[in-house]
Amino acid sequence: MDMKALVYTGPNQMTYRNEEVPTPREDEVLVEIRAVGICGSDLHAYLGHDERRPAPLILGHEGAGIVHGGEWDQQAVVINPLVSCGECEYCLNGFANQCQSRQIISMPPREGAFAEFVAIPKRNLVPVPEGMSLSTASLAEPIATGWHAVTKGAELSKRPLVENKTLVYGGGAVGLAAALSLAAQGCKQIYLAETNALRRETVEKANVATVFDPLTDQVVGENTMDLVVDCVGNKHTRMGASAAVKPGGVIIHVGLQDSFEGLDVRKFTLQEVTFAGSYTYTMQDFKATLEAMHNGALGALDWIQERPLSDGANAFDDLLNGRIAAAKVVLLPEG
Amino acid sequence: MDMKALVYTGPNQMTYRNEEVPTPREDEVLVEIRAVGICGSDLHAYLGHDERRPAPLILGHEGAGIVHGGEWDQQAVVINPLVSCGECEYCLNGFANQCQSRQIISMPPREGAFAEFVAIPKRNLVPVPEGMSLSTASLAEPIATGWHAVTKGAELSKRPLVENKTLVYGGGAVGLAAALSLAAQGCKQIYLAETNALRRETVEKANVATVFDPLTDQVVGENTMDLVVDCVGNKHTRMGASAAVKPGGVIIHVGLQDSFEGLDVRKFTLQEVTFAGSYTYTMQDFKATLEAMHNGALGALDWIQERPLSDGANAFDDLLNGRIAAAKVVLLPEG
Repeated sequence: MDMKALVYTGPNQMTYRNEEVPTPREDEVLVEIRAVGICGSDLHAYLGHDERRPAPLILGHEGAGIVHGGEWDQQAVVINPLVSCGECEYCLNGFANQCQSRQIISMPPREGAFAEFVAIPKRNLVPVPEGMSLSTASLAEPIATGWHAVTKGAELSKRPLVENKTLVYGGGAVGLAAALSLAAQGCKQIYLAETNALRRETVEKANVATVFDPLTDQVVGENTMDLVVDCVGNKHTRMGASAAVKPGGVIIHVGLQDSFEGLDVRKFTLQEVTFAGSYTYTMQDFKATLEAMHNGALGALDWIQERPLSDGANAFDDLLNGRIAAAKVVLLPEG
Repeated sequence: MDMKALVYTGPNQMTYRNEEVPTPREDEVLVEIRAVGICGSDLHAYLGHDERRPAPLILGHEGAGIVHGGEWDQQAVVINPLVSCGECEYCLNGFANQCQSRQIISMPPREGAFAEFVAIPKRNLVPVPEGMSLSTASLAEPIATGWHAVTKGAELSKRPLVENKTLVYGGGAVGLAAALSLAAQGCKQIYLAETNALRRETVEKANVATVFDPLTDQVVGENTMDLVVDCVGNKHTRMGASAAVKPGGVIIHVGLQDSFEGLDVRKFTLQEVTFAGSYTYTMQDFKATLEAMHNGALGALDWIQERPLSDGANAFDDLLNGRIAAAKVVLLPEG
């Protein structure tokens, strides 16, 4: 049986075409995708910069949809795209996101969710709360990434979030999610640095943080931030984070723009700064995020732009050229 | 009144000469120094590389001696050289080592302990346990630095030290102290990397770690260490630490050889590594260290070389030329 899919066919090439519907394995079910977000890592792969994602490949890992068949037939679900083994020391210790044999949909051997169907283990599905649209539900994945980072920051911080001044780098979905998660977890003083004016507008509307352009505004003083969450992750944001963090403070590093430089190790040592990497989320983060989305703790979640899956290539182009104010573009298969 | 002191009089110059005995302020007492260790930071200052320590200055901050006058007259004490305010958020939070108005003896406005006398607040003194020599007691300062780093590593580690594989960089006093502290706090698998053959011999005698030369031996595999304690702190040890640490692992950074480069931020992010700076110790670390030294938990503590204070300049020269196997040189004023 065939389905429509948006296939990455080579650097800067995205082809909307027929592909075979995947066959679920024994522990898996088939999910009909109704909404799937575009992530920065999809853009990265599309540009040919991710050797873990060779063409041809169906990208997309932020999916929500309807189960076909089995016990959960017709259930609306959101997909946790990380498939872990459940048996290694990381899984047993509650860090399935560090499982060394983990897979993620949109990376071989698993195809992604820019398609009408995805095969996925049933244990990776979370029911969508009553009344939540599938577009909104698809935000659970990027928001859980911000939620996990904030949870880690709160754990490592010497004082509770309610006492902390926090700076977030990046006003995309994960940065905004980090700011919303900080507020939901009790933080009262949140600053957010974003260089794109369209994105700043979107974040300002969420009314959760003091938003500024770090290239032109010095809103945040040196040695003043208890916690910095870097959702960009390049040399410049790390230099900014190093300067802004206060003695004994914490930097959580989520972004993956580049791999080296920018950290002031001497300051980290003399002032006992803690710098910790944060990658994706655990299933517990995923569920807690969906609950916070449902009970309103994360605000209106209206920072989405919906586009048909068939228009995906144009959406990629718009995103790469900074023409989209929405923090998240969600693609909708026509079904 | 005059006393003998070893004075840093300019880059590569150390003069043994008469200086005025310091006058204690209201909350201070006079301590007659009987033993004082040479620290790497003294060598750094001697070479003219520490702008916070301009000549002329009496260096030395690892002192033990006898109180002169007041309530504690004739008490043998070891000096905690960090003078903190006791009132700021860091002091109140138990991190007096981060007090932003802290002073340390051997840095203006406080003269150091390479002298017959030092003036110091009484609250900075800890009584020397029964039967411990003042040379041994003077080790409390460098050992507390290693103890604090290990305590921090244990706090940040997901699993108890008894389950951890740990790698220490550096076989000087702090590196050796870190290895001994790891063992005292329960760690069973300790590796120590040191490039100087004389120092390796000394550490091997302590029989606490598998000692190796990281330039020639690949004893420690990639992604295998739960905890790395870097007591060297240069680009090469940070590259080694980045490679050796396992997913979810912890790197504690104590050394201050250089300030940038060597950290694999991409790995830290994807594999959720925690990197934390460690600076000196709290008074609680200092007291716990002295207790562990006293009860034998840190071994024989026989890795000292004693030299007269008047021979200090030669001791500096020997240390800088790698001619000393002992992990610590302790200078003894003749009194």
